[in-house]
Amino acid sequence: MISKLISGIKAKNAPVVVGLDPQLSFVPKFILDKYYKEMDYSLEAVAEAIYEYNKGLMDAVADLVPAVKPQIAMYEQFGIPGLVAYKKTVDYAHEKGLVVIGDIKRGDIGSTSTAYAVGHIGTVQIGDKKITPIDEDIVTVNPYLGSDGVKPFIEVCNENDRGIFVLVKTSNPSSGEFQDKEINGCPLYEIVADKVKEWGEESMDGDYSNVGAVVGATYPEMGARLRKLMPKTYILVPGYGAQGGSGKDLAGFFNEDGLGAIINSSRGIIAAYKNENYASFGEEGYADAARKATEDMLLDIRENI
Amino acid sequence: MISKLISGIKAKNAPVVVGLDPQLSFVPKFILDKYYKEMDYSLEAVAEAIYEYNKGLMDAVADLVPAVKPQIAMYEQFGIPGLVAYKKTVDYAHEKGLVVIGDIKRGDIGSTSTAYAVGHIGTVQIGDKKITPIDEDIVTVNPYLGSDGVKPFIEVCNENDRGIFVLVKTSNPSSGEFQDKEINGCPLYEIVADKVKEWGEESMDGDYSNVGAVVGATYPEMGARLRKLMPKTYILVPGYGAQGGSGKDLAGFFNEDGLGAIINSSRGIIAAYKNENYASFGEEGYADAARKATEDMLLDIRENI
Repeated sequence: MISKLISGIKAKNAPVVVGLDPQLSFVPKFILDKYYKEMDYSLEAVAEAIYEYNKGLMDAVADLVPAVKPQIAMYEQFGIPGLVAYKKTVDYAHEKGLVVIGDIKRGDIGSTSTAYAVGHIGTVQIGDKKITPIDEDIVTVNPYLGSDGVKPFIEVCNENDRGIFVLVKTSNPSSGEFQDKEINGCPLYEIVADKVKEWGEESMDGDYSNVGAVVGATYPEMGARLRKLMPKTYILVPGYGAQGGSGKDLAGFFNEDGLGAIINSSRGIIAAYKNENYASFGEEGYADAARKATEDMLLDIRENI
Repeated sequence: MISKLISGIKAKNAPVVVGLDPQLSFVPKFILDKYYKEMDYSLEAVAEAIYEYNKGLMDAVADLVPAVKPQIAMYEQFGIPGLVAYKKTVDYAHEKGLVVIGDIKRGDIGSTSTAYAVGHIGTVQIGDKKITPIDEDIVTVNPYLGSDGVKPFIEVCNENDRGIFVLVKTSNPSSGEFQDKEINGCPLYEIVADKVKEWGEESMDGDYSNVGAVVGATYPEMGARLRKLMPKTYILVPGYGAQGGSGKDLAGFFNEDGLGAIINSSRGIIAAYKNENYASFGEEGYADAARKATEDMLLDIRENI
């Protein structure tokens, strides 16, 4: 799977993924009102509005970027109807030829991790049928439970040519509370990184592994060091834009081949129409604003790597 | 919420929760076949079968235990229909007067954690309506992302009188890979425990906090030490039975008031009919077998605390 993502990155010259994190306040009022009128104030109305919003965004950026990253929490908050919108978003992204990185941050142990893995990136056997339940291409995974928690995902990756990104150093201010704690002079996130490297050897796909890592753009020095510690590991980099990371912070996340990292932006793109720089597009032009913000982000990134 | 759980534990003399983790191989064939006949081999058929199986289990144990703990991964593996069965299970548990501990192990940052929290244990505001999306009473939370990831859950707990159990030391063999790493002579899980204690002070509900901890039954010495480090923290203890923990390992998880811990058993109860000790119940008697296994577990626990 990572080779497919890399092909897309090269073809579009775009190591960028658009985060589809539809907070309710991002969804344009004209879309919400349409569904409120039809379906009253309900989870179902919001879910339909989110799906329409996402389709507009994907139509606007599908030729510019290789992938989208829906954040499942933003759908799960609207219960079952929200999760239906998540599944429809995954399917529509595939129709548009986009790689789908499901930002699910799941992690459990043994058969429970296997259940998450088959549900999201695998197939379940029901009677004589093999069925693909949710069908993302890549998902994010939380490592706190150790190898028991992560290896079942890798097995499912290997059976289905899919990928995972394991949380190593997250972009938030308090990520250091546990992740930076020093163990014999070495921070925990480096110990996790060592494991990611080791796990990744079981799932190579060309020059890189299907087992990637998440490292926040907000920690560029750590990113540069982790890049060297895990040379074959693709790094998913959240935190660009709204969280404070910018193009000049990103060079260290890439290898000398110009590959090795993919940068996520969510609200900076999908809610661009709310930003004064793109306000002239107006609410009805939310998708065009997202396209322009993506183009601007690509310029910023290309000149810095 | 923790005071409600404690009332149930006292009323039934049962510091026990039944884990509803319906692996497909646990669901009796006669139930599966009924739905396969009606709905072919499909996610929908499996989801209906799981819900019927769960109802039978809850009918059989609702007067014996105060709570159930559905493991969402086992539902999520069957995609949207599986998640519908999860939601219906939550609602049916409430009809039976059971506290629902959603074993979801979610964790993210900021507004994303808030989204998970409102989806599972809170309400969303849609227009002029407040809607409760999934409606568990308590959920499990992964701490790897630090305070940014956990505090949004606590805020939602405080607004809605709900609870969380934060993963501290999990029951699996490789939990030590990261959790046991020593930081200035102190294992990571104790540093997490200190934070759980601190977070818990923001959400006291009687003698205990709505912010609890998960500590595996398979690590009784660590359990006894963590019990002392976090005296006001309720501990959810997985790993009893199939994973190797037994009653004699559990005394240290309890405080002198006989409270402070709730022990989970999943397959040992819900798949008891597959165990040779309860085989005489047969597949059709799966619910009676579960009831008998629960009674036996209660005897084992009561004589050890």
